[in-house]
Amino acid sequence: MRQFLSDNAAAVHPRVWDAMRAADEADAPYDNDALSRRLDEAFGALFEREVTVLWVATGTAANCLALATLCPPHGGVVCHREAHIEVDEAGAPGFYLHGAKLILADGAGAKLTPDDVRAAIDPIRDDVHQVQPHALSVTQASEYGRSYRPEELNALGALAKSRGLGFHIDGARFANAVAFLGCPPAQAAGPCDALSFGCVKNGGMSAEAIVFLDPAAAALARYRRKRAGHLQSKGRFLAAQLLAMLDGELWLDNARAANAAAAEIADACGERLMHPVEANELFVRLTAAERDALRGKGFGFYDWGEDAARFVTAWNTREEDARTLADAIAAL
Amino acid sequence: MRQFLSDNAAAVHPRVWDAMRAADEADAPYDNDALSRRLDEAFGALFEREVTVLWVATGTAANCLALATLCPPHGGVVCHREAHIEVDEAGAPGFYLHGAKLILADGAGAKLTPDDVRAAIDPIRDDVHQVQPHALSVTQASEYGRSYRPEELNALGALAKSRGLGFHIDGARFANAVAFLGCPPAQAAGPCDALSFGCVKNGGMSAEAIVFLDPAAAALARYRRKRAGHLQSKGRFLAAQLLAMLDGELWLDNARAANAAAAEIADACGERLMHPVEANELFVRLTAAERDALRGKGFGFYDWGEDAARFVTAWNTREEDARTLADAIAAL
Amino acid sequence: MRQFLSDNAAAVHPRVWDAMRAADEADAPYDNDALSRRLDEAFGALFEREVTVLWVATGTAANCLALATLCPPHGGVVCHREAHIEVDEAGAPGFYLHGAKLILADGAGAKLTPDDVRAAIDPIRDDVHQVQPHALSVTQASEYGRSYRPEELNALGALAKSRGLGFHIDGARFANAVAFLGCPPAQAAGPCDALSFGCVKNGGMSAEAIVFLDPAAAALARYRRKRAGHLQSKGRFLAAQLLAMLDGELWLDNARAANAAAAEIADACGERLMHPVEANELFVRLTAAERDALRGKGFGFYDWGEDAARFVTAWNTREEDARTLADAIAAL
Amino acid sequence: MRQFLSDNAAAVHPRVWDAMRAADEADAPYDNDALSRRLDEAFGALFEREVTVLWVATGTAANCLALATLCPPHGGVVCHREAHIEVDEAGAPGFYLHGAKLILADGAGAKLTPDDVRAAIDPIRDDVHQVQPHALSVTQASEYGRSYRPEELNALGALAKSRGLGFHIDGARFANAVAFLGCPPAQAAGPCDALSFGCVKNGGMSAEAIVFLDPAAAALARYRRKRAGHLQSKGRFLAAQLLAMLDGELWLDNARAANAAAAEIADACGERLMHPVEANELFVRLTAAERDALRGKGFGFYDWGEDAARFVTAWNTREEDARTLADAIAAL
Repeated sequence: MRQFLSDNAAAVHPRVWDAMRAADEADAPYDNDALSRRLDEAFGALFEREVTVLWVATGTAANCLALATLCPPHGGVVCHREAHIEVDEAGAPGFYLHGAKLILADGAGAKLTPDDVRAAIDPIRDDVHQVQPHALSVTQASEYGRSYRPEELNALGALAKSRGLGFHIDGARFANAVAFLGCPPAQAAGPCDALSFGCVKNGGMSAEAIVFLDPAAAALARYRRKRAGHLQSKGRFLAAQLLAMLDGELWLDNARAANAAAAEIADACGERLMHPVEANELFVRLTAAERDALRGKGFGFYDWGEDAARFVTAWNTREEDARTLADAIAAL
Repeated sequence: MRQFLSDNAAAVHPRVWDAMRAADEADAPYDNDALSRRLDEAFGALFEREVTVLWVATGTAANCLALATLCPPHGGVVCHREAHIEVDEAGAPGFYLHGAKLILADGAGAKLTPDDVRAAIDPIRDDVHQVQPHALSVTQASEYGRSYRPEELNALGALAKSRGLGFHIDGARFANAVAFLGCPPAQAAGPCDALSFGCVKNGGMSAEAIVFLDPAAAALARYRRKRAGHLQSKGRFLAAQLLAMLDGELWLDNARAANAAAAEIADACGERLMHPVEANELFVRLTAAERDALRGKGFGFYDWGEDAARFVTAWNTREEDARTLADAIAAL
Repeated sequence: MRQFLSDNAAAVHPRVWDAMRAADEADAPYDNDALSRRLDEAFGALFEREVTVLWVATGTAANCLALATLCPPHGGVVCHREAHIEVDEAGAPGFYLHGAKLILADGAGAKLTPDDVRAAIDPIRDDVHQVQPHALSVTQASEYGRSYRPEELNALGALAKSRGLGFHIDGARFANAVAFLGCPPAQAAGPCDALSFGCVKNGGMSAEAIVFLDPAAAALARYRRKRAGHLQSKGRFLAAQLLAMLDGELWLDNARAANAAAAEIADACGERLMHPVEANELFVRLTAAERDALRGKGFGFYDWGEDAARFVTAWNTREEDARTLADAIAAL
Repeated sequence: MRQFLSDNAAAVHPRVWDAMRAADEADAPYDNDALSRRLDEAFGALFEREVTVLWVATGTAANCLALATLCPPHGGVVCHREAHIEVDEAGAPGFYLHGAKLILADGAGAKLTPDDVRAAIDPIRDDVHQVQPHALSVTQASEYGRSYRPEELNALGALAKSRGLGFHIDGARFANAVAFLGCPPAQAAGPCDALSFGCVKNGGMSAEAIVFLDPAAAALARYRRKRAGHLQSKGRFLAAQLLAMLDGELWLDNARAANAAAAEIADACGERLMHPVEANELFVRLTAAERDALRGKGFGFYDWGEDAARFVTAWNTREEDARTLADAIAAL
């Protein structure tokens, strides 16, 4: 089986394994161990500014713990109608934010522009009867594999600031966006207040990082993380994964590999592509018969509605598999 | 340093590592993988009845997801005043149970008897002004390392049933209790509705099991687990840890080793012991000077109030370290 | 000033005042007084079946306490995108339902058909990643003053039943719907599980009724009402309002008066009407200049977007004022 | 029946009725009416400083909305073990504060001293595993009818400030405390951040005031009030009650009358009194036989445990009834 279902269950990178094994010896519990205490500095170097970093096991927890520092229970978080936090997190924001509302905006490619955000929030009356927006969350790369350019994030950040909105980025595939953009990570994160920095989909096992720009927000999130049962006692194994990723730019190497595989397939898709491929996901117009044909050749992928399919590459997608899929699509 | 601070940060057992490595190849995400799908059967064999099992990363999450199936937001959970869920989980039950209340009971050794429970709930007026009890939670082994006998659990279960209370066991150190009691696991769990089955403190890395007797409760908990950000996409690595533990009774071997080390130290403590040692924790009367002396010899442990210390052994506590500590205490 | 802004701040009907004054003498507190204890029977007679009735002070509380009996915290409530619970209750459902989600459906006139409901819920994958629908809530009369016919409610109820959804009706203006439909109240409530029966907008002061078909749901709501701070100690004054309304069909007389005033104005609006007038609200296409002209003549009303206005009549709208407004609109 | 069960269901004072009737004519809805807009000034004059005031229907709602501005969901509120918010509000703080914890302190007469508060919070470890205190709530007069002296409140306020705790007063019977203390209201409220100012027990019908010292907290509470379904559309009737109370010191006159009746009974109780009578509640040692005898003479009151009774006087307790009760107790 040549697997293009998702990157979320891929194997763990050998260097991540090595780092975890190296962390086996007992150290202080929770995040008092030596590895966890190195995270702020390691991510600070990456983002070229002081940050405070918390590990958690999942992207859902990362997103929600970050958002809970930006939006009170009676407030709202603006996000795309197809954002992962709205569609695929089982209402976790409602849980973590104590009933706060997701205010849904529309935008091409599951991305939002300032105009899209304004269209969602300008109609909200400034009174106590309507839920007021308190934060903005966007996904980098987006749910359709589109990457925000630095200037787009700056424009969103400026709007957020002018409206008093906290700014969060769901970076479950942040690495793929940075690899695509070729810019410094800080630019790919724009002027956000908190970033969910993905690792699991990129060769990690069970660690994501929440990168906070505001230490006070991070301090708050520490209490909330424990309260949510996400403070693991052997947290050193999560820190080890994250540090291994940053070490020698493994995170970027992995993302580049996934992106390269996606690009190779994209080249074969031509007009079939529903969205430009700017990360490691492809949304491809394919009839049911065509999908059957591909599956018959051993390719695994999800249907995307009636007339399309989604393919996702991973850090360990084999060059040969990508080329074979590209050829198979081209041959349809 | 000879470490007796806690078992919660100990190294991971080699067979757990092996099982995790063996799970590396991509499988279906979340809990759709082959290993996760084996959990019900494996734990069913252990408990000699049908059960439904969910993995989560922490004991706090296990406890809270279990309790959330037994108590509504407007209800209360009876527990010991020194229960972990009351004292050391940062208010997680308040979060997961949406403001439900912990109704605190007193009992010797952090254990509860039916009389203790009645003393806590009988004064509650049966009207809408007071929070009504809906569940009972006890810890096996208790926060003071005491183990409930099967007949004690049966009596608690009978009371719970007669009062319409769900019955939960926090088994963060369930293995140590079973190893101490020498009875079948089912008897050490009594007639509970849900059990948090600990693994992390017993040689695991990042997996605990919630064992549900009622499949409907488990189905509910599945939604809540995802909603809490605890559904890891590479869940196979959690399942692997749990299965490795059950394989060949590793969980019992590990617990027996920890208990044996504790017993050896206990023998040296005599009258200093504040509680009988029925698992792997020791609470020992020691003056500040005595504690200083022990620390001077390289032993690590926590103070317990002004005049005592807590020692915890782990699956990998070295026989030599336990003996040396025993000798040092005896020589005080 | 001839006021057509809303019915929600109108004067209290004299018979309601009389009933409140008659309730002045101390009685048992909360809902243990004689008047509160008569509610089940009085509403039971009205709806021709056994019901359990709780008073609360506001429609928001009524809606949310009802819905909280039908949908768990991890679930979703299907409602119209312009439903009051979505648009004008400050996120109260998120608060009362502990983060449950409103699943938004579209439908003409702020009404929903079974097809509309299906269009909203059929795309929801039946897995733990997406919030599953647990309840349906519709507004009778709708937010655009449209009344559901009994057969429409029956069809919705049948769908709800087949999908396992609880069925709630927000009847803030239920009286106006019944007055319009001319059918027995039970038919205007359809096969719902719980009805928020409005009184404040219809000549009451501070009382709404939640009518439960299931006594167990009502019992649950009693705890939740107290927990929400809605159990008033002098609850007899709320019961008095509700009983006064039912006495001699005052509730219907008041609604008929409001509807008649609305109908008179509607006749003058002709093509200007955006929605058929089936209760006591009118949505009328009027340019800014026309609205200025009407306001210049002393009429009070809200703008409705750029090119329309909303007029609401009340139980005490003077016949003369309605006629004058009708004439003024006709003369534009 | 001579009623001493509670003041919470007493008749409404005629001047409150008059004020409500005078408010009948339609005005702007919610709290945009002329009466609601006078509250800040009226209470500001009473407390001799700028305040922001919100009406709500119940003391439970007042307490919880106030506390929700002082304590985050992951925090704790220190209160007496017998505080109304702990014992008799059905877990409402857990609901409104999203799972925040009540940290229980002990103190004589249901009052707290700084030492009592310290005894409750000093043992709390300053780490993420334990719920940290964020606010302090005391009851004036206390649940045993004891009134805090101004200097006692100042000492509590100083402690609260030094520990970073918000300071709330549950003043369900604040009027009785002020009447007893004979000091300016501001001194009876001490340096609190928010006060629940009771009216219902003191001759009102359905209005309590939350008096905020911090306008930002009040602004937050406005959203939360609506979100909790406590923003009544005919709010003018609540404002009318509160203004009637303040007008000509009716609130103090009513409280003085209740206190005087209590004092008359207290004089007859002598050694039977469990607590000094500093408001309008009496806790009196009476055997079951004595209680039977009193009930046989037509007095209504609650048992208080096995060997005592609670008597509560109200604004309209008849002088003759108080004297008769006093005589009957003296004659036992």
